[in-house]
Amino acid sequence: MKKITKYVIKNSLRRIFLYHSCLVRLKIMGVEKLYSYTLAYETGVTSDQVRKDFSEFRIKGNRKGGYNVNTLIRNIEEIFSRNRVHNIVLIGMGNIGQALAKYAGFEQRNMNIVATFDIDPFKQKMRSGIPVYSMDRLQEIMDRFRVSVAILAVPEVSAQQVCDELVRSGIQGIVNFAPIFLKVPPEVVVNNVNLGDELESVFYYVNDSLKVIGL
Amino acid sequence: MKKITKYVIKNSLRRIFLYHSCLVRLKIMGVEKLYSYTLAYETGVTSDQVRKDFSEFRIKGNRKGGYNVNTLIRNIEEIFSRNRVHNIVLIGMGNIGQALAKYAGFEQRNMNIVATFDIDPFKQKMRSGIPVYSMDRLQEIMDRFRVSVAILAVPEVSAQQVCDELVRSGIQGIVNFAPIFLKVPPEVVVNNVNLGDELESVFYYVNDSLKVIGL
Repeated sequence: MKKITKYVIKNSLRRIFLYHSCLVRLKIMGVEKLYSYTLAYETGVTSDQVRKDFSEFRIKGNRKGGYNVNTLIRNIEEIFSRNRVHNIVLIGMGNIGQALAKYAGFEQRNMNIVATFDIDPFKQKMRSGIPVYSMDRLQEIMDRFRVSVAILAVPEVSAQQVCDELVRSGIQGIVNFAPIFLKVPPEVVVNNVNLGDELESVFYYVNDSLKVIGL
Repeated sequence: MKKITKYVIKNSLRRIFLYHSCLVRLKIMGVEKLYSYTLAYETGVTSDQVRKDFSEFRIKGNRKGGYNVNTLIRNIEEIFSRNRVHNIVLIGMGNIGQALAKYAGFEQRNMNIVATFDIDPFKQKMRSGIPVYSMDRLQEIMDRFRVSVAILAVPEVSAQQVCDELVRSGIQGIVNFAPIFLKVPPEVVVNNVNLGDELESVFYYVNDSLKVIGL
């Protein structure tokens, strides 16, 4: 069985997303065919890396004649089964949760938040788009909509407890926005999105380059 | 000069954050000393990887006697100069921008959003916490607060244009929430946080594991 990198998305996968967004942009600009070095140049990686990534994800192309942009885009979207709708639940309707519930980028990619959950009865009465349920409806909603993935946007203190409830209800994957390392059984995939880490990483690289160039 | 990985945060840095949050949790539980294998077990990586990462970031420890938890936490925080306040601007007060402006996790780590910007005059009149300015104040505010890093949370269509303005005003690093690959000069660091990618990655691993175990 293939080892699942649970704690961090592999960089080849991140680059595949990067290639995809770059290809979509090139397509809009009228580009129909390209070579790996064009994609490499546009995304700031090496041609070798592009070809290695394509091979890892079994994306085929004619090296001599160049890749067809439409075919590449379609091949990448097949990796993620974008032709199928994926249902999601979102737990925690605080600031981040509410923003994610309104985020248009999920639906554009056929990922559909079918329900949100919050312990606050006031929030359960909110009538703006997606319904907000209390946690005791979790199992029922997950079964009805065949949900396998959840977005967790609850405060740090309750994240592990809610995570345990999700696991008991049969969740298979979690995008976790709480700044905490969740304990889950080995078969459950967790992708931690820590906004503080993302910002601090930029400071790390900025400060590092300042040091290097002697400022 | 050290090559800056501009398009993607290196995984060793991501693991350093992981170790930090794990160490903080262990400290709360009363742990004072630990071996690399404990940290490895708790974070789901190998002991070798932990030691390799520590060596890359020059985090020292006594292998025989084990690492001191407090010292490790302090060493990691020094990497990110957490003792210093880092000022940030946030551009785009849509759903995501507003949620980020209220996100407590930045300030806890000494990253301080000093001003936000939006082209909408209505939003410029919002009076809830951090001021919202029009873009023509960008240079002035950046200079006044010595801002080197920006959070970009504008719609995809205007992201490149706003990015160019930030670069002209002397920005050195950007956390970009717009689902677009920004063109920047080589000295500017961009960290793309694509929420769609983060969610779709989880579906990729979940579907992949379903295939592998034959469901």
